Amino acid sequence: MNAPTTSLQTEGRPGLDALFAPRSVAIIGASSDQRRFGGRPIQYLLEAGFDGPIYPVNPARAEIQGLKAYPSILEVPGPVDCALLAVGADVTQQTVEDCIARGVKAAICYGAGFAEVGGEGEARQAKLLETARAGGLRLLGPNCMGALNAQTKFYGTFASALEDGVPPAGRIAIASQSGGYGGYLLRHLFLRGLGVSQWVTTGNEADIDVGEALHWMAGQEDNDVLIAYIEGLRSRDSLIAALKRARENRKPVVVMKVGRTAEGSAAAASHTASLTGQDNVYDALFEEYGVHRARTTDELLDISYALSRRTLPKGPRVGVISISGGVGVQIADFVSDAGLTMGSVPLETQDKLRALVPHCSPRNPIDMTGLVTTNHDIMEKTLDAVFEANAFDATLIFLGITGAAPSMARPLQQAIANAHARAPDQLVFVSVTCPPEMMREYDAKGLLAFEDPSRAVNALSALWQFRETFSADMPAPVALPPAEALPLPEDGKLNEATAKALLAAHGIPSPRENLARDAAEAARMAVDIGFPVAVKVVSPDILHKTEVGGVALGLASAEAVEAAVARMAETIPAHLPDARIDGYLVSEMVKGGVECILGISQDEAFGPVVTFGLGGTLVELLKDTVCALAPVSEARALEMIGKVRTAPLLTGYRGGPRHDIEALARAISGISVLAAQHAGTITTIEVNPLVVRPGAGGVVALDAVIETRPVE
Amino acid sequence: MNAPTTSLQTEGRPGLDALFAPRSVAIIGASSDQRRFGGRPIQYLLEAGFDGPIYPVNPARAEIQGLKAYPSILEVPGPVDCALLAVGADVTQQTVEDCIARGVKAAICYGAGFAEVGGEGEARQAKLLETARAGGLRLLGPNCMGALNAQTKFYGTFASALEDGVPPAGRIAIASQSGGYGGYLLRHLFLRGLGVSQWVTTGNEADIDVGEALHWMAGQEDNDVLIAYIEGLRSRDSLIAALKRARENRKPVVVMKVGRTAEGSAAAASHTASLTGQDNVYDALFEEYGVHRARTTDELLDISYALSRRTLPKGPRVGVISISGGVGVQIADFVSDAGLTMGSVPLETQDKLRALVPHCSPRNPIDMTGLVTTNHDIMEKTLDAVFEANAFDATLIFLGITGAAPSMARPLQQAIANAHARAPDQLVFVSVTCPPEMMREYDAKGLLAFEDPSRAVNALSALWQFRETFSADMPAPVALPPAEALPLPEDGKLNEATAKALLAAHGIPSPRENLARDAAEAARMAVDIGFPVAVKVVSPDILHKTEVGGVALGLASAEAVEAAVARMAETIPAHLPDARIDGYLVSEMVKGGVECILGISQDEAFGPVVTFGLGGTLVELLKDTVCALAPVSEARALEMIGKVRTAPLLTGYRGGPRHDIEALARAISGISVLAAQHAGTITTIEVNPLVVRPGAGGVVALDAVIETRPVE
Repeated sequence: MNAPTTSLQTEGRPGLDALFAPRSVAIIGASSDQRRFGGRPIQYLLEAGFDGPIYPVNPARAEIQGLKAYPSILEVPGPVDCALLAVGADVTQQTVEDCIARGVKAAICYGAGFAEVGGEGEARQAKLLETARAGGLRLLGPNCMGALNAQTKFYGTFASALEDGVPPAGRIAIASQSGGYGGYLLRHLFLRGLGVSQWVTTGNEADIDVGEALHWMAGQEDNDVLIAYIEGLRSRDSLIAALKRARENRKPVVVMKVGRTAEGSAAAASHTASLTGQDNVYDALFEEYGVHRARTTDELLDISYALSRRTLPKGPRVGVISISGGVGVQIADFVSDAGLTMGSVPLETQDKLRALVPHCSPRNPIDMTGLVTTNHDIMEKTLDAVFEANAFDATLIFLGITGAAPSMARPLQQAIANAHARAPDQLVFVSVTCPPEMMREYDAKGLLAFEDPSRAVNALSALWQFRETFSADMPAPVALPPAEALPLPEDGKLNEATAKALLAAHGIPSPRENLARDAAEAARMAVDIGFPVAVKVVSPDILHKTEVGGVALGLASAEAVEAAVARMAETIPAHLPDARIDGYLVSEMVKGGVECILGISQDEAFGPVVTFGLGGTLVELLKDTVCALAPVSEARALEMIGKVRTAPLLTGYRGGPRHDIEALARAISGISVLAAQHAGTITTIEVNPLVVRPGAGGVVALDAVIETRPVE
Repeated sequence: MNAPTTSLQTEGRPGLDALFAPRSVAIIGASSDQRRFGGRPIQYLLEAGFDGPIYPVNPARAEIQGLKAYPSILEVPGPVDCALLAVGADVTQQTVEDCIARGVKAAICYGAGFAEVGGEGEARQAKLLETARAGGLRLLGPNCMGALNAQTKFYGTFASALEDGVPPAGRIAIASQSGGYGGYLLRHLFLRGLGVSQWVTTGNEADIDVGEALHWMAGQEDNDVLIAYIEGLRSRDSLIAALKRARENRKPVVVMKVGRTAEGSAAAASHTASLTGQDNVYDALFEEYGVHRARTTDELLDISYALSRRTLPKGPRVGVISISGGVGVQIADFVSDAGLTMGSVPLETQDKLRALVPHCSPRNPIDMTGLVTTNHDIMEKTLDAVFEANAFDATLIFLGITGAAPSMARPLQQAIANAHARAPDQLVFVSVTCPPEMMREYDAKGLLAFEDPSRAVNALSALWQFRETFSADMPAPVALPPAEALPLPEDGKLNEATAKALLAAHGIPSPRENLARDAAEAARMAVDIGFPVAVKVVSPDILHKTEVGGVALGLASAEAVEAAVARMAETIPAHLPDARIDGYLVSEMVKGGVECILGISQDEAFGPVVTFGLGGTLVELLKDTVCALAPVSEARALEMIGKVRTAPLLTGYRGGPRHDIEALARAISGISVLAAQHAGTITTIEVNPLVVRPGAGGVVALDAVIETRPVE
């Protein structure tokens, strides 16, 4: 892992070292009862052997859990890096003020009754934050379950997941907005024999949010994997900084983002005070940074477990060795579903396998028949032959229920371990039905044990995705040149000409066109532009031009243009006597090409988002669009184009022409830069249709709308 | 469950009673070694207490496993219903002949070395089948793991899954083509505390196939759930008969069909001698009969377990009660993903919940805070209030790791059980992390316990699907009227006129059109048809009519028609001097409507399949089509139309017109009946485009191709 290079802007506030690696801890509201939240952290700190002073604070006690207690934080003798506030919401403000007076650097506020209850609670939290900021105190919570750092033996949490004993340190770091889910995850990792390096729950996030915590974790040396649980974000910056740092340091990030669906979002809004961004925007962000988004806890745990072997596959080729042909077929299905491939067994290796078991199926999935379950020497030799061939990037051995009976299973396990010991670089998964303690024996031998083979394959697929992410170059940051001043209309809407001019300056040309006042001028302009031309009425009062006869296409002569405008000038006022007519737009006819839609919208958490899709009713119906946070580079825009299902229509489908996707990528990037430059001003851009021409013909915006925030 | 009414055609062969419920069993190749496949079944039969005579046959022994042994099946004293053949492939033929001579009714052939090895093995299997058929002997296998019937205590299998003891009977029946997977499933059901009623593995399926076994099971009273594992089918009839019978008897069917993907299919072809039908055809079949297709073993087991409560939800409304808001949001996501809905909590019930815990979230997902984990009375009262409101069709209670510690978990479990006992009709799922034995305690209390909540939700969703299937009417069989004689061309291809005439007789009209020999006749015909018309050159030698100027559209007068034909007659021979010109098709112009594609293809296992989709490049690119086994009823065809993603374009999208989907359904049904009537003759039909007109305008086939098998 490299040294961290991305730093997070925290506006001069102190970092999180005092929170995650305090040298001394005070527990305010300390309790002798180990089941209370003022008692549990003391128990955990003592049990883990925290290597600094622990100061229980409780005015009613002289001694708590064998430690000298103090009546107030102000009377604690030594310096205090971190204070755990196990006090009610009513006294939290005073307690924080005392902490600041005492020089405490970080405080963990467990208590509820703040922003999550609304009204008064919100005000209480705002005041608390103001005080903490002014006093240079970093605040975790309120309404959280605290934090731990196994490296420094700091257990600043009352999570019941540690009740059975503080487990050994591991190399997984977890940042969770939810305390309940954070504890749930902790427990499940322990059940799988996995430990954590750091763990934090951010609760209401008055000060420290999940992104900042994750950013701190991404800079540590003692973890390999970052897990985040997110319900909603208030700001994008800390999360993006964290993902960048993790990507730079080659740390895989697995995220559970809930509130994916309308049902879930409604629940999320009632649960926290934070905003849930549009779900597809999260997907776009995660994809950009190579984050794996887990849909279920099982999936999240499976991937974390697979990552604990610290080996990523070099390619997507899977080898399957099964004792049942039927299951082999099934696993081949899983492999294909997961975007991996079934590797080919070299002919020479097939011969070796046939020499071992004449009636075997030596091609992938390899079926050595039930013989290997009783003849472990054959299993070992099979694996030797397969590993030697080096034809697979990962091997999945299906043992099934053979692994259940210790008499059969242990020697079989040993045979696999022996072969693996001779080829330790091989990434080996075993799908086996056996008790948890036997599963852990596979771990100890450097193998990965799963029960259902589909879960092994899915975890492997995630590993391969991480490998691909880490093999690719870091996405280059998109430079934002200084923005030009925008012509800001009072009604917040730029007229079509202004909008098109702005887009043209950002790489999205319009057709050659001009605004004529009357029929004669239109005819002259048409001659300049060249025939054929299109003529459109321009009026702020006419929404559907076609319906009032306000559009004429393919006009081939000056006479035709003059006649068309004259007819519009006569018939439109007859239909709509009150419509103001600003003139007639005479445009070059754009023929051929693929119609697309390109736009900018605002996400409440992430700001400007650029969305692209092919045009037309059908694509709209099928919602075949792709989005990304603005700004995007041209390279990223090219990737976006490749992701719409209808992309083959642009790249040449069934002998159709290849269109100018490079120009399209420039347009996507250009509009995203424009939106990012004017993030405070421009709210919406819609270019529809944007025509992408064949060959190197470029793109043309046939219509464009730009809306801005009203001038204040 | 009702009495079975669907019967399977087995061409006068005896049914499977002798196989599944024999009154006497002989084991040929019997062994004293309980690990051998001639030894294990005897052990299992003895252990289970099989209620009839067991005759070991072994010429070298007088006694086997405490039973008198016989030198030959011919010397066994009493009648033998079923013989287990634990002998090599080389002596199987003679053994089967002896069995027939002895009057044995069914034989289970364990041994390998038959069709699965190809060549000689195939011939060996064919001869065996011929002998068995002639002798009235039903044959299971070869190359299988046998069968069991817990009801009659018949254990005719050597499956190692029973090694730890023959488990109690359950109400799940399993038919698996794969022995290995069948045993795997058996073991996993036992691990979940579930038993089976019957279990069979069909191996090479020389005689009895998975469909016939399933059909027999669907007629039994002692099972509630049918599970099938399928790699490929030789014939569709037995499976369809089984699914019909299961549907009639309201028995949910869960199928694992492997070889879904190209990777999997390649593996399946190398594993068995059977054909793997097109995967989407299987999906269509399963959907038609309400079969749940499981993708993983976990899913299959989860659903089987959930069905074991013998209660299906009355609706899709889920209530979620969680001790963690975060997990509640997550579960809401799962609910939405699974096609279920989050039910609403009545205001009155919300008030009751607030009275219990003032700071609770009383709306769904209900979050009663961590309080309920320590105050079990509140949990009980919460559930009472929720069950009383009857606002949910199923309730999911998330306990998480609270369920791990027995001191906290047992009283919590009891609180839930108490409330459930007062409302036993409620379908209650508990998501809890605890050891397997505690999971089974939930079962004993009539609750359903899952670890990951996503799996509980997915299983519930399957239950709801079954409920919907069973609530709907049985699909009416589609009557096939006697087929007219087909005009069979020698080259296997009907000409366009013949094809269109045939389609018109099946409810798919063509435009008004006529074949003219020359320009003058074309003009006269156009007058009869009415203007505007289209003219197309008709020639077996011209594939792309447009490219040679052979198509003229929108001709508005007799003169225009005459001129167009004259031009074609002049220019086409100039381009293609060798092309035979049969004439000029003068057709009514069809304007408006939506272009679709409708076709028939042949599936190797299932025969004629009807496929429908909207037309055009984009739909082709997106593979937005739907298929079904022919014939289909109009009602089923309407359902098919609703399943393509682009269906809104037909039903009225964004103010667009509604098109004649009734006529389209008649066309889909009509073409499917035509294909089924002539299943031995017609191989392909393609109507492209088929135009569906707005309103009640019907459909029109603009072009049609029908291919038939060459006449022999």
